[in-house]
Amino acid sequence: MQSWLEIRQDCDFSIHNLPYGIFSYRGKKPRPGIAIGEFIIDLKQAHKKGLFEGIKIPDKVFKKTSLNSYIALGQKVHRAVRQRLQEQLQTDNSLLARHRDKLLIPIEEATLHLPVQIGDYTDFYSSLEHATNVGKMIRGQDNALMPNWKYLPVAYHGRASSIVVSGVPIRRPMGQSRPNDQEPPIFGPSRFVDFELEVAFVIGRPTQLGEQVPVTKAEEYIFGLLLFNDWSARDLQKWEYVPLGPFAGKNFASSVSPWIVTLEALEPFRTVGPIQDPPPLPYLQTQGKRTFDLHLEVSILPKGAAEETVVCRSNFKYLYWNMAQQLAHHTANGCNIRIGDLMASGTISGPTPDSLGSMLELAWNGTKPLPMSDGTTRIAVNDYDTVIMRGYCQKDGIRVGFGELETLLLPTG
Amino acid sequence: MQSWLEIRQDCDFSIHNLPYGIFSYRGKKPRPGIAIGEFIIDLKQAHKKGLFEGIKIPDKVFKKTSLNSYIALGQKVHRAVRQRLQEQLQTDNSLLARHRDKLLIPIEEATLHLPVQIGDYTDFYSSLEHATNVGKMIRGQDNALMPNWKYLPVAYHGRASSIVVSGVPIRRPMGQSRPNDQEPPIFGPSRFVDFELEVAFVIGRPTQLGEQVPVTKAEEYIFGLLLFNDWSARDLQKWEYVPLGPFAGKNFASSVSPWIVTLEALEPFRTVGPIQDPPPLPYLQTQGKRTFDLHLEVSILPKGAAEETVVCRSNFKYLYWNMAQQLAHHTANGCNIRIGDLMASGTISGPTPDSLGSMLELAWNGTKPLPMSDGTTRIAVNDYDTVIMRGYCQKDGIRVGFGELETLLLPTG
Repeated sequence: MQSWLEIRQDCDFSIHNLPYGIFSYRGKKPRPGIAIGEFIIDLKQAHKKGLFEGIKIPDKVFKKTSLNSYIALGQKVHRAVRQRLQEQLQTDNSLLARHRDKLLIPIEEATLHLPVQIGDYTDFYSSLEHATNVGKMIRGQDNALMPNWKYLPVAYHGRASSIVVSGVPIRRPMGQSRPNDQEPPIFGPSRFVDFELEVAFVIGRPTQLGEQVPVTKAEEYIFGLLLFNDWSARDLQKWEYVPLGPFAGKNFASSVSPWIVTLEALEPFRTVGPIQDPPPLPYLQTQGKRTFDLHLEVSILPKGAAEETVVCRSNFKYLYWNMAQQLAHHTANGCNIRIGDLMASGTISGPTPDSLGSMLELAWNGTKPLPMSDGTTRIAVNDYDTVIMRGYCQKDGIRVGFGELETLLLPTG
Repeated sequence: MQSWLEIRQDCDFSIHNLPYGIFSYRGKKPRPGIAIGEFIIDLKQAHKKGLFEGIKIPDKVFKKTSLNSYIALGQKVHRAVRQRLQEQLQTDNSLLARHRDKLLIPIEEATLHLPVQIGDYTDFYSSLEHATNVGKMIRGQDNALMPNWKYLPVAYHGRASSIVVSGVPIRRPMGQSRPNDQEPPIFGPSRFVDFELEVAFVIGRPTQLGEQVPVTKAEEYIFGLLLFNDWSARDLQKWEYVPLGPFAGKNFASSVSPWIVTLEALEPFRTVGPIQDPPPLPYLQTQGKRTFDLHLEVSILPKGAAEETVVCRSNFKYLYWNMAQQLAHHTANGCNIRIGDLMASGTISGPTPDSLGSMLELAWNGTKPLPMSDGTTRIAVNDYDTVIMRGYCQKDGIRVGFGELETLLLPTG
């Protein structure tokens, strides 16, 4: 697909992508937009100009400060909008081309906001490599993986209020930990702040309480994907997590990328996941290409450093449990889901030492410090480090990417 | 305080109470109300009639379908409204008295709804007796209590979407469990549905991400309290909960009572909690009467039975960790809170065998079946049982109660 708009070959926001976000510009109220090349298509203005004529979209949807109302219009509308925009981008002298000065906002000049109002946020734990690595460190080689792990996509509920968008700095949390088992616990700034490389999906279709989403239909309930950094304070987490799971070690902040890449845009990059042995119970059985070949990487940019250092190269396809299985399990008990709910994958670690999705694993619990380009080393995230996550699919000259999720860690306030 | 309105001595909704809820009546949109005796004060109509003259309340607040906007007006407004209504209820020929036909809606004829829009729901685990009982069953007498338990108010995040109000029936969940360790897990209806007797507080004042609520100020952030039934599927929970805590065994449903009793109404019933030994770390230290003498009970009404059977009599004051400590711990890491967030206490078990707050404990993991008034016995909640929770404070002729939280358990759908 060729466009009158110049889009660099290596740009994440190609004509094949068209991801959704919420932006503000020149002091105006945040509103929905779609990223293309170096620009954002202002959907409110585009709608006003008649760009979506014939597609049923109420005016108010593009005036909202979150995408929830737009998502609620359903897949038929989303597909029509996507098709219309691809046509407009390919046709010289289209409405969009003629009004480009008004309808295309330079991304650089816009502020990006949280794209959805998140009702509930669930975090899975679906990487076999990650679960095994963490298990080894805590319980040793022989008991690394819990007996339930290969039977169900283990998950816990996280905090929705503290999810922030890329660009919002976070603070090193205070909290309780017990560095010495022979002494009482202490309270102070966490001594081990970590990132977790994750991908989250956004619920696009709600269910009623008591309703189950069958695994074969589960993808119909997914609007799109985001990069997700599940910030973790390992020392707090270690002391608190038995028996009810992570809490203060996680809920101080999570970060998401600003653009939701739709399942439709990811379609060309479908691939198969790992072989599941033992075979899942019937309610979790899927067939075919249920995941995506989505490259992921994490960099750290220390304060004042000239260059970032890539510390992790992983891939979404490494995950043992796929999204359909996660959602089928989540709703098997009748738990209802709402538009805008986030379901994150859990840390995505791969089979190689450079594909591990957290500092805990990369520096193997502090035993293998990672060299930075500025000559320093890291076993955790330091104050004033910026952690940058990127993700993209690429194949046959087509690129569909997520842009950047970048977060600065500030010291305890 | 005497009123022209007849209020029975044993009525939970005395002139000292004035709890807030959301009701609908004759097919109209749900809106805020206050319970008094057998009636609901229609706040929208009362406001229209000038009952709150001189108190700054925007019109729209009483037209909302949740209390969040009203709560956001702040404590000064809430106190003024409370005082005004107490005056109106005590003064013959007051506005309220003259317009009682229009302003007082019979509770019996109204439908009650979820009182707040819940952003995040947190469940604590703050009963020493409950944590010890469950610990004994799982890990034996010697390792009953985890080392962290007496140092921090252990908590996990629950599911907000599946919280329903009293009167809404729920369904026995399907799920994965492993009844036999030598066999693979199975999928089917839970074989052990349980209630958990809890009290939840509603956040009345928000914080920003990164902000800490000091333990000495924490109560200022609490609007009021609700009864909370944290439904649990023990067989699902047992199989899934290591290492990330409860998930599908809990998130199929939780039930709340319809009326929020304010901290102000509970003031006369303040009392001290248990002695905390070891003393908490400084950020968790409180002094004086930080809890309430709030009687709690749970009944089961089997299908077709003539009478309910009271299975539990407990008290809010038994809780080891108080609300101020819970909230200070929750925000110590900078986790932000929002108006309408719910924080539940965890199961409130007392020191005596009849004060245990779950069937798991009452029937001691199935070994002591509980007799019902209809001649049947229970070790768990059966299909078509209705579980009824009640709570009230009473002292010097003053009664402040929560009404009923009643939920019917339906079979798997």
